[in-house]
Amino acid sequence: MNVKKYQKQYYMPPVPCMDWAEKDSIDKAPVWCSVDLRDGNQALVIPMSLEQKVEFFKLLVEVGFKEIEVGFPAASETEYEFLRTLIEHDLIPDDVTVQVLTQAREHIIRKTFKALKGCKNAIVHVYNSTSYAQRQQVFKKSKEDILKIAVEGAKLLKELTEEAGEKYRFEYSPESFTGTEPEYALEVCNAVLDVWQPTADRKAIINLPSTVELSMPHVYASQVEYMSKNLKYRDNVVLSLHPHNDRGCGVSDAEMGILAGADRIEGTLFGNGERTGNVDIITVGMNMYMQGVDPELDFSDMPKLCHAFESFTGMSINPRSPYCGSLVFAAFSGSHQDAIAKGMHWIEEKAPDTWTVPYLPIDPTDIGRNYDADVIRINSQSGKGGVGYILETKYGLNLPAKMREAMSYTAKSVSDHLHKELRPDEIFELFKDTFENVTTPYNINGVHFKQLDEGRIEAQVTSNYEGGEYATAYAEGNGRLNAVSNALKQQYNLQYDLVSYTEHALEQSSSAQAIAYVGIKKPDGILSWGAGVDPDIIRASIDALVTAINNR
Amino acid sequence: MNVKKYQKQYYMPPVPCMDWAEKDSIDKAPVWCSVDLRDGNQALVIPMSLEQKVEFFKLLVEVGFKEIEVGFPAASETEYEFLRTLIEHDLIPDDVTVQVLTQAREHIIRKTFKALKGCKNAIVHVYNSTSYAQRQQVFKKSKEDILKIAVEGAKLLKELTEEAGEKYRFEYSPESFTGTEPEYALEVCNAVLDVWQPTADRKAIINLPSTVELSMPHVYASQVEYMSKNLKYRDNVVLSLHPHNDRGCGVSDAEMGILAGADRIEGTLFGNGERTGNVDIITVGMNMYMQGVDPELDFSDMPKLCHAFESFTGMSINPRSPYCGSLVFAAFSGSHQDAIAKGMHWIEEKAPDTWTVPYLPIDPTDIGRNYDADVIRINSQSGKGGVGYILETKYGLNLPAKMREAMSYTAKSVSDHLHKELRPDEIFELFKDTFENVTTPYNINGVHFKQLDEGRIEAQVTSNYEGGEYATAYAEGNGRLNAVSNALKQQYNLQYDLVSYTEHALEQSSSAQAIAYVGIKKPDGILSWGAGVDPDIIRASIDALVTAINNR
Repeated sequence: MNVKKYQKQYYMPPVPCMDWAEKDSIDKAPVWCSVDLRDGNQALVIPMSLEQKVEFFKLLVEVGFKEIEVGFPAASETEYEFLRTLIEHDLIPDDVTVQVLTQAREHIIRKTFKALKGCKNAIVHVYNSTSYAQRQQVFKKSKEDILKIAVEGAKLLKELTEEAGEKYRFEYSPESFTGTEPEYALEVCNAVLDVWQPTADRKAIINLPSTVELSMPHVYASQVEYMSKNLKYRDNVVLSLHPHNDRGCGVSDAEMGILAGADRIEGTLFGNGERTGNVDIITVGMNMYMQGVDPELDFSDMPKLCHAFESFTGMSINPRSPYCGSLVFAAFSGSHQDAIAKGMHWIEEKAPDTWTVPYLPIDPTDIGRNYDADVIRINSQSGKGGVGYILETKYGLNLPAKMREAMSYTAKSVSDHLHKELRPDEIFELFKDTFENVTTPYNINGVHFKQLDEGRIEAQVTSNYEGGEYATAYAEGNGRLNAVSNALKQQYNLQYDLVSYTEHALEQSSSAQAIAYVGIKKPDGILSWGAGVDPDIIRASIDALVTAINNR
Repeated sequence: MNVKKYQKQYYMPPVPCMDWAEKDSIDKAPVWCSVDLRDGNQALVIPMSLEQKVEFFKLLVEVGFKEIEVGFPAASETEYEFLRTLIEHDLIPDDVTVQVLTQAREHIIRKTFKALKGCKNAIVHVYNSTSYAQRQQVFKKSKEDILKIAVEGAKLLKELTEEAGEKYRFEYSPESFTGTEPEYALEVCNAVLDVWQPTADRKAIINLPSTVELSMPHVYASQVEYMSKNLKYRDNVVLSLHPHNDRGCGVSDAEMGILAGADRIEGTLFGNGERTGNVDIITVGMNMYMQGVDPELDFSDMPKLCHAFESFTGMSINPRSPYCGSLVFAAFSGSHQDAIAKGMHWIEEKAPDTWTVPYLPIDPTDIGRNYDADVIRINSQSGKGGVGYILETKYGLNLPAKMREAMSYTAKSVSDHLHKELRPDEIFELFKDTFENVTTPYNINGVHFKQLDEGRIEAQVTSNYEGGEYATAYAEGNGRLNAVSNALKQQYNLQYDLVSYTEHALEQSSSAQAIAYVGIKKPDGILSWGAGVDPDIIRASIDALVTAINNR
């Protein structure tokens, strides 16, 4: 790679403009403008059909967009027809403004107005390219000539709107702003504003596209701040940004640009758009949300949004795309799962005012995702926290801590060897196979108890080994389980200590069952575990003990 | 969505730290550390097999990584075995240091050192979680206790390294740094450094993970700057960052963090990693490259990298992922294609020192991509620039400007109606079908010329109409084509003006063929075009004329 072939292609403002950096976060949602149907659409290998666009438009309205760029009507028949369909079928709600894009060229502007006929609320968005590179290589025109293109376009918009007797709003973009000298971009925008003479009740939109992302986001923010501080009619201007993502920083461009004075963001759902895409409005909006700022857009059914987007555009959503990707809440690693499980318990117990669960910047259920399927997932990297969490929340099994550890080693090992993720039902089956009512080699056929003095119990235990003949043993203990344990030890000359016994009702079971967990320590110091399930808690504990004995 | 459930979960440094913002760009590559085999791997639904990890390790070495985190050897059998395989099969080049991750817990650290046995160059990376939320909910420990965990871990690392007689380097991460009070993180890191006493020839790495991205990147950068300014032994500390991407700003975190004093970046190829992923090292590196700064990593065969990554991890690369996605150089829209075509011509003609093509932040061929397949793509959004570019660069056809326009309308309309992208070969076929040697309704069977006085020519033209009987006409003209045109006009009472004639050799053809383009203006003012291909340029021009007449 020949690095000498490159140099910076952006221009710093003439004075440092970093006041924005004194703010650490955004405190209010900007005006959002979806450009899914224009920028998003024109970047698809197969642009959307008219029907798909209509459905997508309805979805955008549902999400809460009040400004929607619907296309470049002069660019193709489909684009033209789409706008006509929206107007003629009365599909544009009264509180929604459609936006149409046009180059600053007379015949294109005229065709755009033709397409708009009968539209109540519209923003006519006119642009021409102002960057150094485009002036030099594409238009081969002077700064003065390029400014004139903008001014002539602005005039024609005004003229045709008056002719049509409409009150359309106007937007101007110095396209390729990020490759334009800021002073020159300012000069062009101010000349356009001089034509439009915006007022408080009919503001003009000045849009600063990061057509190609050429610098770090703080440079873009300083360019935006420079414009914001120096635009004429500033109070009557809505300062808009249109970030792309060529350097992977579209979200930061938008966010820092808002701190720098921008009032409005043009972007798309899931960051679809030319090349690396437009800024992803979902991420910018949800980033506000996770800090307690209302994005004024509704993302509460993210799976539905994802599905609709994928079906309309033919694109697929990256599993790691913030907030919406399939894997973004997933924790496979043991320590993460453990922390999440503890954080969830904390929320349940303490009911704090705000969400604070480690590794989960937001509660997945806020956007229609769920813990079981999306968060705690088990593979060879997982630990006791995750396995314990799944058995507890999904199957009502509250394993003792050390038994959770044993179960997690079992699960890890299976996942490691099978080289696959284990689903919750597979975890549950694995638990049952490994730890529940294991009856070989030792098996108990029947138990009878007799109450002795001083609370002591005598157990009569009939059992066999490896399917052999049944034998009966008698032993005392300070409790029923203890007595059974002693009988088995005596019968088979077993050596272990009973170190853990817990039980609880199985709430999720239809019949009133109980589960008992028993841990025994064998002479080599290794713990062995068993569980038993039975309506009779005594029987359950005996089954648990036998399982623990059987497990090595 | 209940926004009141959330509040900021990060902490500002005690003093403003925004000196970094005075720099606008990065001027030197950081030390890179790949965590693909650890963080990337543990985030996969199906973690990589040992064989896949070995292959991936080799790939990372090839790309130029000198520090590679190879796993968490104490976490699973596969992880342990992988490190052993690297060591025992001598797969670690002398100039590459492997890094292993361990929690600050005694038995895990001991197992980690066991796994390292025989390794020459290693970084032992120890961490414990320091955030407010984790201290409160997960560890339920005081600041003092958490600091003690870090210090004890640091001591054990030192002790076991000395015991092993090795010179391993050490790294400490205050995990969940982004949710930790910066003063406290500093206190913990300085306490660890006091244990390690780093020197100029054995520097310690202090790594500040954005374990979960909780703030805007300029906040993270100010936290990094605070640490950089206040760490003890700063000259002997390599300050490392480990950004994640929960707010979609991992790249900005890394880049601004570098400006803020970081010396080293931990990340992955293609941004694989927990949840939303780690910072994508390809993007950060290529962002430097596009500004003329050597990233010191080799991405010159991006398609190979993409393919290898996808096959190892089972993940797929998003088509819009900066620099590497399939669509990131694609221009469908007419104005973009036109600008790119002009920019490419500019480069050819002027041979400027640096790359300046509009809409292409880098030359796609630098990373193994190509113009034909990746850049100029034709669908219903496309214009004359794109179609003209493809016909010229791929098929050697240099159409007159106005004919390019006619061809682009044809292509757009076909794409719009078929609802599909047109491949270059389909564009070429469409051109031939529409504009080359069209012989109905008018068809010329034979032509003979006679030289008259004063350079005038007489043509004898035998032709027919709609397959009817052949007739012969005679006409004069000031040139051969002109004479044939006059003969046809006379024969069929045709009305048009011959307004454009150009021709060129077809270099890409094996036999020495020429192509001629003819444009005629019919009485309604509409232009009509034809092309003819023949070894004889006269015959080619006559075919072009007849085609133009036949085309309406």
